[in-house]
Amino acid sequence: MSIITLTTDYGLKDHFVGALKGKILSEFQEATIIDISHEIDPFNIAKTSYVIGAAFSSFPKGTVHLIGVDVELNSENQHIAMQWNDQYFICADNGILSILIQKIVPQKIVAINIHDRFPSDATDLDVFVKVACHLAKGGLLNVIGKEINSIKETTELQAVVQENQIKGYVIYIDHFGNAVTNISKKMFLETGKSRPYEIQFKTKIIKTILAKYSDIVVSEKYSIKDYEGEKLAIFNEAGFLEIAIFRSNPETVGTANTLLGLNYRDTILIEFKN
Amino acid sequence: MSIITLTTDYGLKDHFVGALKGKILSEFQEATIIDISHEIDPFNIAKTSYVIGAAFSSFPKGTVHLIGVDVELNSENQHIAMQWNDQYFICADNGILSILIQKIVPQKIVAINIHDRFPSDATDLDVFVKVACHLAKGGLLNVIGKEINSIKETTELQAVVQENQIKGYVIYIDHFGNAVTNISKKMFLETGKSRPYEIQFKTKIIKTILAKYSDIVVSEKYSIKDYEGEKLAIFNEAGFLEIAIFRSNPETVGTANTLLGLNYRDTILIEFKN
Amino acid sequence: MSIITLTTDYGLKDHFVGALKGKILSEFQEATIIDISHEIDPFNIAKTSYVIGAAFSSFPKGTVHLIGVDVELNSENQHIAMQWNDQYFICADNGILSILIQKIVPQKIVAINIHDRFPSDATDLDVFVKVACHLAKGGLLNVIGKEINSIKETTELQAVVQENQIKGYVIYIDHFGNAVTNISKKMFLETGKSRPYEIQFKTKIIKTILAKYSDIVVSEKYSIKDYEGEKLAIFNEAGFLEIAIFRSNPETVGTANTLLGLNYRDTILIEFKN
Repeated sequence: MSIITLTTDYGLKDHFVGALKGKILSEFQEATIIDISHEIDPFNIAKTSYVIGAAFSSFPKGTVHLIGVDVELNSENQHIAMQWNDQYFICADNGILSILIQKIVPQKIVAINIHDRFPSDATDLDVFVKVACHLAKGGLLNVIGKEINSIKETTELQAVVQENQIKGYVIYIDHFGNAVTNISKKMFLETGKSRPYEIQFKTKIIKTILAKYSDIVVSEKYSIKDYEGEKLAIFNEAGFLEIAIFRSNPETVGTANTLLGLNYRDTILIEFKN
Repeated sequence: MSIITLTTDYGLKDHFVGALKGKILSEFQEATIIDISHEIDPFNIAKTSYVIGAAFSSFPKGTVHLIGVDVELNSENQHIAMQWNDQYFICADNGILSILIQKIVPQKIVAINIHDRFPSDATDLDVFVKVACHLAKGGLLNVIGKEINSIKETTELQAVVQENQIKGYVIYIDHFGNAVTNISKKMFLETGKSRPYEIQFKTKIIKTILAKYSDIVVSEKYSIKDYEGEKLAIFNEAGFLEIAIFRSNPETVGTANTLLGLNYRDTILIEFKN
Repeated sequence: MSIITLTTDYGLKDHFVGALKGKILSEFQEATIIDISHEIDPFNIAKTSYVIGAAFSSFPKGTVHLIGVDVELNSENQHIAMQWNDQYFICADNGILSILIQKIVPQKIVAINIHDRFPSDATDLDVFVKVACHLAKGGLLNVIGKEINSIKETTELQAVVQENQIKGYVIYIDHFGNAVTNISKKMFLETGKSRPYEIQFKTKIIKTILAKYSDIVVSEKYSIKDYEGEKLAIFNEAGFLEIAIFRSNPETVGTANTLLGLNYRDTILIEFKN
């Protein structure tokens, strides 16, 4: 099986995504194409990184991830392909991968150098499609690029770890309106060393990170429904601290965004007690 | 062919749906995955039931429907799988299936009991994926669960049938803004027995249920375009009474919602004359 | 490989698209189904034509395009299927194809005439599904319809070409908020004959059509980011003049729609100088 995933900011109303799939199938008819997201906030590198970083580990080895956000080849951004965890990532070198590889060491990164093999009216995506199909068929990175040792650094806000606190930021508001931070479970465990803690944001405090959402139900006197709308903290599937509203719904119960005022780039502080 | 359909409230902007598909393909690479909807109103059981109930009959026997709405295993909701009409439905026992099975008798229902075979960081969805792939491969229900005879009752508003009237409710507003009720064609035919009728809602009355939308055009003096924006009643594909606006468009013509003021849970009355 | 693409105004929140795919797979399990768009503005013929016209050339020969917009068979619109460029298009004869075939001569057009072979509760889509699967399996047009020589003319605004000017219209606002016109690159080259030109719209003027978006960066003194929000003109992948905002984003930078006030059906004028 050869899976090619797509993560773009193209939206779903236009022909862009359909046309991209048509080009992939024209090049490699056996490809299994899976959409990760086409609703990335336009040109937003940090959100792209979060989404692809949260998705890739659910896919089998050999999967090729085509990332169509801010792809135009220009004086600042070259096209790159990376092998990591035996999967492949194709994107422009605009900071997306530098956020990703903070987590793990890449096996190999190449600067794609096959642009001169295309007709003059070819687009940047045509190059990505060719590379994705080449890799999905089992082709080597060396054939389509030249190995490089460094990629563009991200300029995104990073979580700051000190002895008694971690200061992080909201990096993503998800479909349910939950606020995902860049504080990882790993950071929390290593810094906290099982000490008591307090999560602070806006004027609010949370003292417990739950194992799952419905652990908010502590008393048998109340039903699950009675807890709707309460704030909670949890490490989400992707391994990041998330401030959530239990059974959040933008149109009824409310969300971390509407009820707690949490927005993209807001600060979240965890203080550990001795 | 092994089809697994997905019906969730995860939305399309995050990584959730893509990751779910990655997990399915990692487990069963030959699966054909079809999206029913990922735009279910969060945690809304009634709307989930309507959507999956309207979709399933278009699929071939053997299809497995994974329903990812309000899936968390907790003290109130166990995980269940149902065989019905030689298709399979996997969901939490939160009322979704009890609405569905008002229409037909299930062949078998089991409470899923394989949770202890998973690592501690496995999610509820991981269990659903395992069950869905097992069934899609032709596996038996008994292997993944214990047969049960009753499931949680729905608390949703039901249509009430009397000798000379049916009182129903708007259960769904579709993409076109049309208002779908829980009055079925079967109810209407059995109660009405070909008597004249009047459909009443808000301050409006409709006296004819059309066979198709464009039957609203009654005179050759006018073109189809002249009828845009007129109200009508029809039994939709799913077999439910729908109050619609001809060629409705939220941004131009208007909809049953914007023009007639019909909202989720509003009352619709059919009175039959003797 | 047998590809069937879908272009509809059904939206993604309801069961419609999933059910349509279920019907196709029930009829032809080997079909590869690709979504072009399900977010077409309801009943909008011009936008449908633009989207399918921009997508089809990315697909291989033999692809079948099922167009589910305004499909109801009625006194004004028959169902038709067209072979064009060795691909197939199935839709109602409501003007969609007449816009498309302004670009190229169709190989064959038939009026679908198999409606009487269906049960009385079959829908218009059931007919389209049957025809799509028939063609995707390699079946002939003659088997499902009767050849016709003319189709319904479009009433949409056309670009007007004169000796020293082209007057066109905004026919589509894309996901990024860019305004796509019906002025083609071909028109521009044939009329302009390399003369200097000025693009006029609202109170604005643009004097250069860029080869790609980031060609807006003309000085090395500034970074790409400094150009965000500037207006530009480009021929898009589909070959039409597009007025865009560099790195447009409805929520941050702004768009051709929000910053320049360009809307669907607004006039764009190109004046050529002697």
